Amino acid sequence: MKLARMEAPRNLVRSVEKPVVLVVAARTTERMRSEAESVLGLASVYYSSELAEGQLDEILPRVDVMMILGWPKFLKSSENLAKMKRLRLIQSVLAGVDYMPFRVIPDTVMICSNRGGFTNAVAEHAWSLILASGKTTNLQYDKLKRGEVSRGYQTGLASDMKLLEGSIFGVVGLGSIGKHAARIARAFGMQIYGVTRSGVTDFPCEFIGDTISLPRLLTSSDILLLAAPLTRQTRQMIRERELKMMKEDAVLVNIARADLVDQRGIYEHLRNHPNFRYATDVWWTGRDGEELFAPAYPFFELPNFLGTPHTSGPLAFMKGRAFANALENVARYLKREKVNNLVNREDYI
Amino acid sequence: MKLARMEAPRNLVRSVEKPVVLVVAARTTERMRSEAESVLGLASVYYSSELAEGQLDEILPRVDVMMILGWPKFLKSSENLAKMKRLRLIQSVLAGVDYMPFRVIPDTVMICSNRGGFTNAVAEHAWSLILASGKTTNLQYDKLKRGEVSRGYQTGLASDMKLLEGSIFGVVGLGSIGKHAARIARAFGMQIYGVTRSGVTDFPCEFIGDTISLPRLLTSSDILLLAAPLTRQTRQMIRERELKMMKEDAVLVNIARADLVDQRGIYEHLRNHPNFRYATDVWWTGRDGEELFAPAYPFFELPNFLGTPHTSGPLAFMKGRAFANALENVARYLKREKVNNLVNREDYI
Repeated sequence: MKLARMEAPRNLVRSVEKPVVLVVAARTTERMRSEAESVLGLASVYYSSELAEGQLDEILPRVDVMMILGWPKFLKSSENLAKMKRLRLIQSVLAGVDYMPFRVIPDTVMICSNRGGFTNAVAEHAWSLILASGKTTNLQYDKLKRGEVSRGYQTGLASDMKLLEGSIFGVVGLGSIGKHAARIARAFGMQIYGVTRSGVTDFPCEFIGDTISLPRLLTSSDILLLAAPLTRQTRQMIRERELKMMKEDAVLVNIARADLVDQRGIYEHLRNHPNFRYATDVWWTGRDGEELFAPAYPFFELPNFLGTPHTSGPLAFMKGRAFANALENVARYLKREKVNNLVNREDYI
Repeated sequence: MKLARMEAPRNLVRSVEKPVVLVVAARTTERMRSEAESVLGLASVYYSSELAEGQLDEILPRVDVMMILGWPKFLKSSENLAKMKRLRLIQSVLAGVDYMPFRVIPDTVMICSNRGGFTNAVAEHAWSLILASGKTTNLQYDKLKRGEVSRGYQTGLASDMKLLEGSIFGVVGLGSIGKHAARIARAFGMQIYGVTRSGVTDFPCEFIGDTISLPRLLTSSDILLLAAPLTRQTRQMIRERELKMMKEDAVLVNIARADLVDQRGIYEHLRNHPNFRYATDVWWTGRDGEELFAPAYPFFELPNFLGTPHTSGPLAFMKGRAFANALENVARYLKREKVNNLVNREDYI
C-alpha cells in the first residue's frame, strides 16, 4: 500500500497532463462544481453539458474516468465508446447500474455503483410512501378538500388506516437503503423480516433469509418494502403468484426499480383486492429505457395506488450525498486506492 | 397498600351491588365490549348508546365512574350532573381533557386524562403528516395524475423536498406522544430540540428548555411538531409573532389541538410564505366545541397546507390502546389503587 501511494499515477508517467474525468449530466449545477473541487488536485474535470460542438470528439480519447447518471446518448452507438481508449472506470452517480449496456463495455473498464450516495434520501422517501399509503393521507385530504368529511365519518376513514406498532415490516434487500428504512421501522416499534441475496445481514431482524425465503416474507408482511437492485435474479420477482401470497390488506412499496414487479400483475391485483395497496417512486420503462410516468394500465384510477415521479434520486443529488459519494470513489481510483462498489457484471448479463 | 387491598370497595360496603361504570359513546363496538370484560369482575358496565329512553335517568344516581369521549350532551345542562351524587371519577377516553367544563364539575370528582392510550396512533400520524408535507407527496401524486410531470421535471419537485437527516426536529411537549415522535426523528438521523413545561425530560435531546425557550425552538427547527395539551398556558402559543421567528421553509405540524395555533395568523403566514408549510390533524372548533372541518379561511386553496380530519384518535380507539388504557385506569380506581393521569384543574381554568 505504501509503495503504491508513493508511485506517481500511471497517466502522469505517460504525460504531464492530469488524468481526465468526464461528468456526463444534462446540467451542471454550482453544487456539483463545488463538490468536484475535491478531485481537482488529482484530475482535470470536464462537464458534458458545457462542451461546445466538436469538443466531445476531442476529449473522448483522453477520458480516464466517466461519471454518469444514465447511459449517455452519445454512446448509444458503439462508435464513440470505441474512441475512449483510455477509459478505465465508469462511476455511476445513480445508485443502481441496471441501465448500463454491459455487453458493449470493454472488460478493461471497471464499473462502480454509487452505493451509499442515496441512502438517506431514498430511505426517507420509502417512509413517505409507506405512511401516505398506510395512513391514507392523500385520500383523506382529497375528501376534506371536497367537503366530504362530516363528523362521525372519521371512524370509516380510521378503519382503512394501519397502526404500525407491533406489525411486520418486510424488506427485500438489506443494503444501506434497506437497513436505514428498517432502522426507522424499528423506531416505529415494528418487527423486521428481511430477505437478502446471501441470507445474512448485520442488521438485527426477527427473521432473515435468502430469496428462497421470499414466501415467508410475502405471507407475513404488513408492509413490504422492495429495496433490492434490479438484476437478472430480481427482475419480475413480484408477479401474480407472489402477490396472491401476500396479506389481503398489505402495503407494497417500491423505491428500487419498477421491473422488480410485473406491471400487469400488480394492476390486476390492485383492482381485485381493494384493501391491498401499492406505492411506488419508480416506473416501468419505455423502449428507450427511460421511465414512463404514464403507465400502460390506468393505475391513476385506483384509490389503492400511489406514486411519486422518482424524486428520491434527484433529492439525493441536489441535497444529499449522491455526487459527493461518487466523487469520493473516483478520488480513490485517482489516488490508486482500492475502489468501492465494484459491480459484478455477471449479476446483470 | 396491603391493608387497602384487603378492604372491600367502599360501594360494596353500602350495598351488595357492584360499582357502576357508565361508558358514554355514540356507538358501542364489539371490541369495546370485549375489552371491558377486564373490569366486569369489579363493576357493572353500562353503555349510554344502549340505554332506552328513561333508563339514563334511572342510572345516573348510581354511576360511580363515567368514561367519556367528549362532554356528554345530556350533561350540557347542569341538572343531570347534579343527579350524579355517587360520581367519583371521570375518566377521559380522549387523550386530552381540554373539552371538559371544569367549573361545573364538583371538586369531589377526580378527572383523569388518557395519557398513553394514543401514543402510537398519534405519533405515527404525526410522521405521516411530517413526511407528506416535507416530501410534498400529495402534490407530486396530484401532478402525476394530471399528467403534468415530464422527464426532467423532477429536479423542480425535488427542490421542494426536505432531506431530514441532519436537520432539526423541534417538539413542543415531550409527553408519551412527543417522545415517541422524537424517537422516530432520531432514527431518521435528526437532531432533537424540545420544550416542556418543566424544562426537563428523560428523553436525550440536543436542546431542552421550558416555554421561555420557545424562541430557540422556533428559530432552529426545520420540522416543528406541536404535541402539547391545550391548557391556559398553551392556548394560542403560536401566533403571527412566533411564526415570523420560524425559518421561511419550516414545516409546522399539529397533532395536538388546533387552538395551540392562531387560525388567522397561520393562514396569513402560509399565504405570504409559500415555502412554509402547515400540516394538521386537528381543527378549530365551532360554537358547540366540536371541530369544524371547514375552517374560517380558505386553507384548502393553499398548496402549502395539508390536513387530515382528526383520524389519529379514532385509529387509537379502533386498533390501538385508547379504550383499553382508559379501562386499566378505571380498574385501578375500582381496586382502590392509585389512579394515573390525575388532571390538575388549575391548568385549565
